[in-house]
Amino acid sequence: MNFKVPKGTQDILPGQTEKWQKVEQTIRELCHVYRYKEIRTPMFESTELFQRGVGDTTDIVQKEMYTFIDKGNRSLTLRPEGTASAVRAYVEHKMFGYPDQPVKLYYTGPMFRYERQQAGRYRQFVQFGVEAIGSADPAIDAEVMALAMDVYTSLGLKDLKLVINSLGDKETRDAHRTALMNHFTTVIGELCSDCQSRLEKNPLRILDCKVDAKHPAMATAPALTNYLTEFSSEYFTKVKGYLDVLGISYEVDPNLVRGLDYYNHTAFEIMITGDGFGSITTLCGGGRYNGLVEDIGGPESPGIGFAMSIERLLLALEAKGIELETKDTLDLYVVAMDDEAKLKAVELLSSFRAKGITAEIDYAGRKMKAQMKAADRANAKFVIVLGETELEEQAVNVKTMATGDRSKVEFGHLVQYVLENK
Amino acid sequence: MNFKVPKGTQDILPGQTEKWQKVEQTIRELCHVYRYKEIRTPMFESTELFQRGVGDTTDIVQKEMYTFIDKGNRSLTLRPEGTASAVRAYVEHKMFGYPDQPVKLYYTGPMFRYERQQAGRYRQFVQFGVEAIGSADPAIDAEVMALAMDVYTSLGLKDLKLVINSLGDKETRDAHRTALMNHFTTVIGELCSDCQSRLEKNPLRILDCKVDAKHPAMATAPALTNYLTEFSSEYFTKVKGYLDVLGISYEVDPNLVRGLDYYNHTAFEIMITGDGFGSITTLCGGGRYNGLVEDIGGPESPGIGFAMSIERLLLALEAKGIELETKDTLDLYVVAMDDEAKLKAVELLSSFRAKGITAEIDYAGRKMKAQMKAADRANAKFVIVLGETELEEQAVNVKTMATGDRSKVEFGHLVQYVLENK
Repeated sequence: MNFKVPKGTQDILPGQTEKWQKVEQTIRELCHVYRYKEIRTPMFESTELFQRGVGDTTDIVQKEMYTFIDKGNRSLTLRPEGTASAVRAYVEHKMFGYPDQPVKLYYTGPMFRYERQQAGRYRQFVQFGVEAIGSADPAIDAEVMALAMDVYTSLGLKDLKLVINSLGDKETRDAHRTALMNHFTTVIGELCSDCQSRLEKNPLRILDCKVDAKHPAMATAPALTNYLTEFSSEYFTKVKGYLDVLGISYEVDPNLVRGLDYYNHTAFEIMITGDGFGSITTLCGGGRYNGLVEDIGGPESPGIGFAMSIERLLLALEAKGIELETKDTLDLYVVAMDDEAKLKAVELLSSFRAKGITAEIDYAGRKMKAQMKAADRANAKFVIVLGETELEEQAVNVKTMATGDRSKVEFGHLVQYVLENK
Repeated sequence: MNFKVPKGTQDILPGQTEKWQKVEQTIRELCHVYRYKEIRTPMFESTELFQRGVGDTTDIVQKEMYTFIDKGNRSLTLRPEGTASAVRAYVEHKMFGYPDQPVKLYYTGPMFRYERQQAGRYRQFVQFGVEAIGSADPAIDAEVMALAMDVYTSLGLKDLKLVINSLGDKETRDAHRTALMNHFTTVIGELCSDCQSRLEKNPLRILDCKVDAKHPAMATAPALTNYLTEFSSEYFTKVKGYLDVLGISYEVDPNLVRGLDYYNHTAFEIMITGDGFGSITTLCGGGRYNGLVEDIGGPESPGIGFAMSIERLLLALEAKGIELETKDTLDLYVVAMDDEAKLKAVELLSSFRAKGITAEIDYAGRKMKAQMKAADRANAKFVIVLGETELEEQAVNVKTMATGDRSKVEFGHLVQYVLENK
């Protein structure tokens, strides 16, 4: 029997997990500074939540969900994204009643989409996302974008591009929708079958099509920007004003639409360009979702958020040659010559570890020479060798591996010696 | 439409997540000191892995798994425990070939079991576990137990009891199995239907039955201890010897068996007793699983590990009145009097945050007085109020909330002032 990790998923092994930890720690610290608090929702939700919250016409809901029936006959779905769950929790726990709005939440964790296999795309992948729910202040839009940018720059990434757009409000979208339908109707026969079905249901999403991206009708499609209401337009201007004072440069792309149905007003993406990438890659996407809380059964509570893939962030770091500092130090290796010495080694080990000293011994029954090699491989700073003499004298030579220096230290002073010299 | 968290699962909300973070940080630091490295495996695996790796006759596999068919017609199961996945990864990534054995791994993450609802039991729960694979050294058994104990004591828990037993080797278990079958055959009609089916398949697990726990035949059942081979017996003696030098007290309970089929030699549980608990509660369980790596398709590689529920750990901390130190500080609240001031507030905010100062402004369009109240609720250390005068003077009074003191500080020196005085 040969068991393998399920298709489209991956194991993250020692050597890699340290990088994940470092990224998560950076995220945790930045969220602390920006005052976003962590929320953890279950890996699955009722299927209907995503149908309602993500949108029935999206690829995610139509093609990519891991849906199953549990033993209690409930239709459950492994979460394909984090916003619907966060909004569900906001409503269920009546966070709209908290005295301070918006409620600023963040999450990191696995998401699940049954996608075709491609390099860098996994069916289980990890997203970090934030949601600021309960405010329609354009300043919070800017804050959310600033936080996303800060995650990347804190980790050392450069060549970032923030692209923004306004998708307007309902009035905007209705007018634009009509214009798009008129525009694409004449060429619809030349577009893919997905686009054909989008024409009636959600023509805005034709602009998001990967298959027809180069069709000439795409470039000439009526821009939503031309249909912005006065309110939407002013809102967008304010968002840009806050980005300006934050010193964050951005590019307005009137064709930026996001793959989820619920966005309105601000939509944004963060791309990375330049060396290490064949083309521009999107690292992060987000936007405003006024109306979503009501759709999910709550009172009117405007919201905005983003999500970023940690896998893609790590790929970007790698492509740019950025090494995250991770600690994998071994302070001390204890070599034991026989069973008697092994007992003492175990005892010493625990006294080291109690003081936060990383220490290791052999558990593979290896001879002294092989144990010394293991200490070398682990890049131990100090090595001690315990045998009959050492047990008699209750003292041992501490060898500093880098220099070859040895100091004789009594057992009772070993911890202090290592703490002082490591 | 009213969406709720799926039955048997829970949201972990701000105020609680900080405790989880603290526990995870403690785990991460201890694992670093003990040299266990993190591994992350997918949330689901092929169903057969758990049938093989957890055991066909266990409650988990028979009754509690979330199994579903994916769009590629694979039978997948949300992981009910972590050992099978870790061992699968050990084999798949040929870690048995690493020069240093055992490979010491740890994981934390959600597990899924469709159990009946009871207080403190969730269908999605989080386990921290370790696996040391590739060594049959009794010293590693002791190390694993020491690490588990260390997690609890580092977080401040007392009243812990380590209970150990030896389940022997294959020879031991075969002899014991025959003795158990003989013993229970005479009373089998009085036992529950689960026990009746266990008699032939796995009579050892009758001792683990919750329904028949008080049946008189339980107390008089032949103890496995009496069937230990000389090798098993010596192995157990060595494990106890290492626990002794580690200064970890333990109790031998010959009736301790674990709910999983794969254990042999060392089995252990950590219980908590005393105030705050109606009865003794098991916090952690583990044991040795020589043979499991072969069952999963790898070469002979003995292993040992444990798993503990984080939910139960947090319940224990709560019951014992232990408050984890979590940081939720707000250094500075910036009150803005008008739109002009708000722009400056956003600019200042980002200069504070860039230096790791936690700072907040109002995003809810509140008047000055309400903003001051929000600053109070958030327990801000400093407050500044920006209006026309401050913008003109490019300076602002910094109010220290605890004392009411005010100091006039130029905008350009604000960051430094807060850093020096916070």
